Amino acid sequence: MKKIKLGMIGGGIGAFIGDAHRRASRICNDYELVGGVFDADYERSKQFAVQEGIDLSRCYESVETLIKAELELPSDIRMEVVAIVTPNALHYPFARNLLNNGFHLVCEKPMTMTVEEALDLERIVAETRLTFALTHTYTGYPMVRQMRDMIAQGVLGTIQRIDAQYYQGWINSIIHGTESRITGVWRLDPEHAGASSCMGDIGVHAFNLIEYTTGLEVNEVLSDLNPVKDDIKLDLDGTVMVRFGKNLKGVIRASQVCGGEENNLTIAVYGSKASFKWAQENPNYLYMLSDSEPARIFKPAHGYNDKFAEMSHTMPSGHPEGIYEALANIYRGTAKSIRGEAFIPGEFPTVHDGVRGMKFIHAVVESNRMGNIWVKVV
Amino acid sequence: MKKIKLGMIGGGIGAFIGDAHRRASRICNDYELVGGVFDADYERSKQFAVQEGIDLSRCYESVETLIKAELELPSDIRMEVVAIVTPNALHYPFARNLLNNGFHLVCEKPMTMTVEEALDLERIVAETRLTFALTHTYTGYPMVRQMRDMIAQGVLGTIQRIDAQYYQGWINSIIHGTESRITGVWRLDPEHAGASSCMGDIGVHAFNLIEYTTGLEVNEVLSDLNPVKDDIKLDLDGTVMVRFGKNLKGVIRASQVCGGEENNLTIAVYGSKASFKWAQENPNYLYMLSDSEPARIFKPAHGYNDKFAEMSHTMPSGHPEGIYEALANIYRGTAKSIRGEAFIPGEFPTVHDGVRGMKFIHAVVESNRMGNIWVKVV
Amino acid sequence: MKKIKLGMIGGGIGAFIGDAHRRASRICNDYELVGGVFDADYERSKQFAVQEGIDLSRCYESVETLIKAELELPSDIRMEVVAIVTPNALHYPFARNLLNNGFHLVCEKPMTMTVEEALDLERIVAETRLTFALTHTYTGYPMVRQMRDMIAQGVLGTIQRIDAQYYQGWINSIIHGTESRITGVWRLDPEHAGASSCMGDIGVHAFNLIEYTTGLEVNEVLSDLNPVKDDIKLDLDGTVMVRFGKNLKGVIRASQVCGGEENNLTIAVYGSKASFKWAQENPNYLYMLSDSEPARIFKPAHGYNDKFAEMSHTMPSGHPEGIYEALANIYRGTAKSIRGEAFIPGEFPTVHDGVRGMKFIHAVVESNRMGNIWVKVV
Amino acid sequence: MKKIKLGMIGGGIGAFIGDAHRRASRICNDYELVGGVFDADYERSKQFAVQEGIDLSRCYESVETLIKAELELPSDIRMEVVAIVTPNALHYPFARNLLNNGFHLVCEKPMTMTVEEALDLERIVAETRLTFALTHTYTGYPMVRQMRDMIAQGVLGTIQRIDAQYYQGWINSIIHGTESRITGVWRLDPEHAGASSCMGDIGVHAFNLIEYTTGLEVNEVLSDLNPVKDDIKLDLDGTVMVRFGKNLKGVIRASQVCGGEENNLTIAVYGSKASFKWAQENPNYLYMLSDSEPARIFKPAHGYNDKFAEMSHTMPSGHPEGIYEALANIYRGTAKSIRGEAFIPGEFPTVHDGVRGMKFIHAVVESNRMGNIWVKVV
Repeated sequence: MKKIKLGMIGGGIGAFIGDAHRRASRICNDYELVGGVFDADYERSKQFAVQEGIDLSRCYESVETLIKAELELPSDIRMEVVAIVTPNALHYPFARNLLNNGFHLVCEKPMTMTVEEALDLERIVAETRLTFALTHTYTGYPMVRQMRDMIAQGVLGTIQRIDAQYYQGWINSIIHGTESRITGVWRLDPEHAGASSCMGDIGVHAFNLIEYTTGLEVNEVLSDLNPVKDDIKLDLDGTVMVRFGKNLKGVIRASQVCGGEENNLTIAVYGSKASFKWAQENPNYLYMLSDSEPARIFKPAHGYNDKFAEMSHTMPSGHPEGIYEALANIYRGTAKSIRGEAFIPGEFPTVHDGVRGMKFIHAVVESNRMGNIWVKVV
Repeated sequence: MKKIKLGMIGGGIGAFIGDAHRRASRICNDYELVGGVFDADYERSKQFAVQEGIDLSRCYESVETLIKAELELPSDIRMEVVAIVTPNALHYPFARNLLNNGFHLVCEKPMTMTVEEALDLERIVAETRLTFALTHTYTGYPMVRQMRDMIAQGVLGTIQRIDAQYYQGWINSIIHGTESRITGVWRLDPEHAGASSCMGDIGVHAFNLIEYTTGLEVNEVLSDLNPVKDDIKLDLDGTVMVRFGKNLKGVIRASQVCGGEENNLTIAVYGSKASFKWAQENPNYLYMLSDSEPARIFKPAHGYNDKFAEMSHTMPSGHPEGIYEALANIYRGTAKSIRGEAFIPGEFPTVHDGVRGMKFIHAVVESNRMGNIWVKVV
Repeated sequence: MKKIKLGMIGGGIGAFIGDAHRRASRICNDYELVGGVFDADYERSKQFAVQEGIDLSRCYESVETLIKAELELPSDIRMEVVAIVTPNALHYPFARNLLNNGFHLVCEKPMTMTVEEALDLERIVAETRLTFALTHTYTGYPMVRQMRDMIAQGVLGTIQRIDAQYYQGWINSIIHGTESRITGVWRLDPEHAGASSCMGDIGVHAFNLIEYTTGLEVNEVLSDLNPVKDDIKLDLDGTVMVRFGKNLKGVIRASQVCGGEENNLTIAVYGSKASFKWAQENPNYLYMLSDSEPARIFKPAHGYNDKFAEMSHTMPSGHPEGIYEALANIYRGTAKSIRGEAFIPGEFPTVHDGVRGMKFIHAVVESNRMGNIWVKVV
Repeated sequence: MKKIKLGMIGGGIGAFIGDAHRRASRICNDYELVGGVFDADYERSKQFAVQEGIDLSRCYESVETLIKAELELPSDIRMEVVAIVTPNALHYPFARNLLNNGFHLVCEKPMTMTVEEALDLERIVAETRLTFALTHTYTGYPMVRQMRDMIAQGVLGTIQRIDAQYYQGWINSIIHGTESRITGVWRLDPEHAGASSCMGDIGVHAFNLIEYTTGLEVNEVLSDLNPVKDDIKLDLDGTVMVRFGKNLKGVIRASQVCGGEENNLTIAVYGSKASFKWAQENPNYLYMLSDSEPARIFKPAHGYNDKFAEMSHTMPSGHPEGIYEALANIYRGTAKSIRGEAFIPGEFPTVHDGVRGMKFIHAVVESNRMGNIWVKVV
């Protein structure tokens, strides 16, 4: 099958997330990286292109140049989809421009800096009918998809409590360093990261995982955020109470200062009949609890799983696949959409997930600023 | 060594917690059960005494009768300490009466129905200088004690976040039953259980574990409680934001409707240098995380532990001790105190822990009632 | 109910296993320790009696004296059952003498020094119809009992492979010490420990667990033992191939030199339909695997368990009980037998289990001595 | 950097292992798949080439045709390395032919059908100085490499016991089916699989992992194999005692009939000072045990690891990589060797590992055939 022509904005030398996107695109084997703007510094960008074996003529100085040049290429070699893996503040202007010129998009999260920007992208996507995939990578894990399917089938009964956690500790080594420690960490700079560090970077993943797996929407939030150190401008830690509807409540806990935690994203959905628990660091184990039966452990590559989970894992059972494969599953679903093939809702997070995420971040920051009051996520 | 003469109020036929107290008292081998008021129904109480081989003449009809009769016995056979294992509402009047008549006490939690009652007991204990042990059983586990010691030694650096959870699911089978399902479950009846079900029964354990292990006091709380079903008067589920001081925050999560959860009490204390994680269902594993070193697993019966942990476990390493042994450790510490022997602070929870617990429950209920605002725990 | 009068041989000051037996007897609450020979050194024995509050007149100088004196006491206060917790070499002469004088017995394993002695005890027990309990403590765990019941019900289909492991590391600190390091460790001295250290002390537990849970008998063994150091006379480590019948084979692996292992006894029984896996260090988790269904985790205190497992655990689910409670379950079954009450086969290991164990140890040592050939366990 | 031109023998439609090789080659990004003989059936082979977007002119009818045609191509587009992913019996003739014509090789295990064939390949590789990589995939995991490095540094002290396990259950559904069940499963047919099923397919992985991580060589083996069913010609299950040198022994346990086991490969190396334990199904956790210190958990992406482990994992800590990444690491090392770049010994398993593996399989089968006697692995 013909490869989809992929471009990339950002992700040059030393950028881990760009590398992840490229690997994912190669694993699913639906793409061919043909060019991009890999670095704000054009020389470094070209250096990267050489290193990757990319035709220098398609290594561009800016997004504008890229658009102009690519549009002039014949349609069978022209870039069809662009992956945006820059710092947060650049997502929106680049996405807007690329969409308006007919490029499909893969975009890193958080999608934009504001809710307004997010809504604008949603509008453009609706109008252009282009494919827009937001890389909430964790939705690509087979057992997350199995959980989503089984919840939709009603196996949990009435959902009674939802608890999601995203704990990391990596920022400790930065904030407890020297005075100049914060400078240069773009995640701690509101101009580049947006209104939130912890909630914007990882809390929003936990939020997305809740809405993705349960199909429910968070109605309102009450947050208490913590910058941890006096001279830090953004939250590095926080707790968010969440409410879904009458008698259904929950909590999202996120932190970047949990020393020794690596990437400890977990979700628990408790129902009247049964419950699910899943943890990202051991992604191939999905626990189903029940009051009246032994707990069960669902794993990939088994006949008892639904089709969606099974198509998201290629090795035989007991051969652990990981985060690159999860991202590759999202790239795979995106490819189907770009090609106009049938795909399963949930095969890739959409611009609407991005809107929901921005509303969540906005509401959480607002709740904290206003003195820990309830704020609607609408 | 001479056994301490133990009496018991409650804990008769079919009462699981009374049985636990008796087993604990036998494991540590410092006590001899000599009498009590085992049931509100005198006939059932006597039936129980016969079954246990207890002298019927010391199986009393009421606490008043017990006090009167025991005080007339010679001091070498007289009951010295009484364990109160009745429903919550009876703790205070019995405790007050017994203390005022010179009996040491072991009391179940929550200690009283109100903060005022708790403060009154604290005053009486201070005046009488009697031993008062509150059975926050989980403080008897060796690895909880190891955690407490190491935190006191400063191994975590500055504490940055604290997260405690207590999830159970047993009440699901009750609340999802027939209409008459709630009647007769005293934990759901405010008159017998007090102002809270979930927070009063289990949330308070999580709270106690935080203060016990860290030596910190919770300053204020903001809670969102959930009765889950419209006709239930008390909380069965809730989230409590907690604040300790500037830049130190955390969360307590508790629920009785997490279907399939058994007795899932956990605590995580995150510091700038290292962190601890412990879970009650595997109590002999204490995890210490650090950003710069491999995670470490502390277990009992090793030379690397402190004396307090080591004296709380008697078997060689790898031979799991459990909850009865934890409770026996508390009974052991209480015996030392009664005998006037030296004991380690923390060998048994005190009346002050009970006061703190009641203040917590009060503040949590108040915060929820007032619309989820911050309430001081003072 | 009247307490059974218990005596003890061995188990004095500093003896951990004697303490374990006493705790177990108190937990189940069917016994009263009335006397014994607690130490070969009479003065230390008396010192211990005083410390434990035991009547000095029943602290005897020798087993012979004990027998003579106790037989002269009125039957309602006379010692009824004796726990033998001495080094291995003394089990047989004491057991023989006590049985021949009408005392029920609880005996530590390995039961004797030779197969002949074991058969002799089996004969005496058959003739006297006295109760003889061998403390293979691990058979007292509720989930081991659940496994036994479910295997008997045929849930595994045809059993195809059995794998048991018992790894410890404690002897490392002894054998890697100074030259005089071995002296004084009775487990390393053939005169006190018998023909084997590792297999006699722990391998036999793994063997017993296999026969207990599956109801199968090991037909023959082929062993390769390892003393690890040149100057050590007994095995500290070994592998034993086991055969049950046509096409059913397995392995027992045991070692005392697995540095860092604590008490890592595990068993896996693999069948054509399903399989069980259990590990002593987390005894409340029983894993059931199947090719076609999610793995299941059985835990105590649930309606899905059989009666035998449920009567072996007293706390609500999620409150971990441990090794003392397992031993107490065996003491409880022994009490039923002594009192002539109905009990479930398997509530305590019998003299026949002891015979099987001695035959196993003998065959394993013989196989190794003969150059690793198959030896029958008959 | 210029991509290495890769060919493939086998691995066409429906072949899982060929797909794994292609993914791995794309993940590491050093290769470009240019042609091959993807199926014995030429039509299916071409169908596959079309599907993969491979130039049909390089989809060959046979290995001979491939060699002839490729050698006529200019060196800058000519196939440089060929991956052999056929059933076992074909490895040797194809490998021999390809090596003799100057192609580098990646070859599946077991390398050949006999020791003689293996030695012949070793000789040819030595003479031709071509790169030969054997895909013992598990050696590509970062924590396996960390274990190898630390053992080489002597952190374990004297190694005292080694225990490796490889349990699967997938063959149960085949052997317990209808009479014709075995026909068509090439792994059960000696003509295609060689002298062993279980030991040849998976036992050899456990053997390789031992020699890879410890640097030790197994001297001799004593095996007891089990075909499980009467009409099956090869072993599906077995235990292998292994000896390394004086006082160093161990065991390899492997089975394909452990119902419910997925791909449960584990290794434990026990030393006088410390021990390592690792399990394939959670490959990012390496446990280090010690008698005197808390157990430690090593994970990838940490400064405490050696360079070899760190270059084998690309994501930040807590982002699990899996088996495809392990295989990609081996492909990466192979690429370095083909390009003449410096590589670390152990970056890919060599033809010598293949010789060792064949000697192991041969010795294990021989030991069993001769009645379970010791056979040298030389």
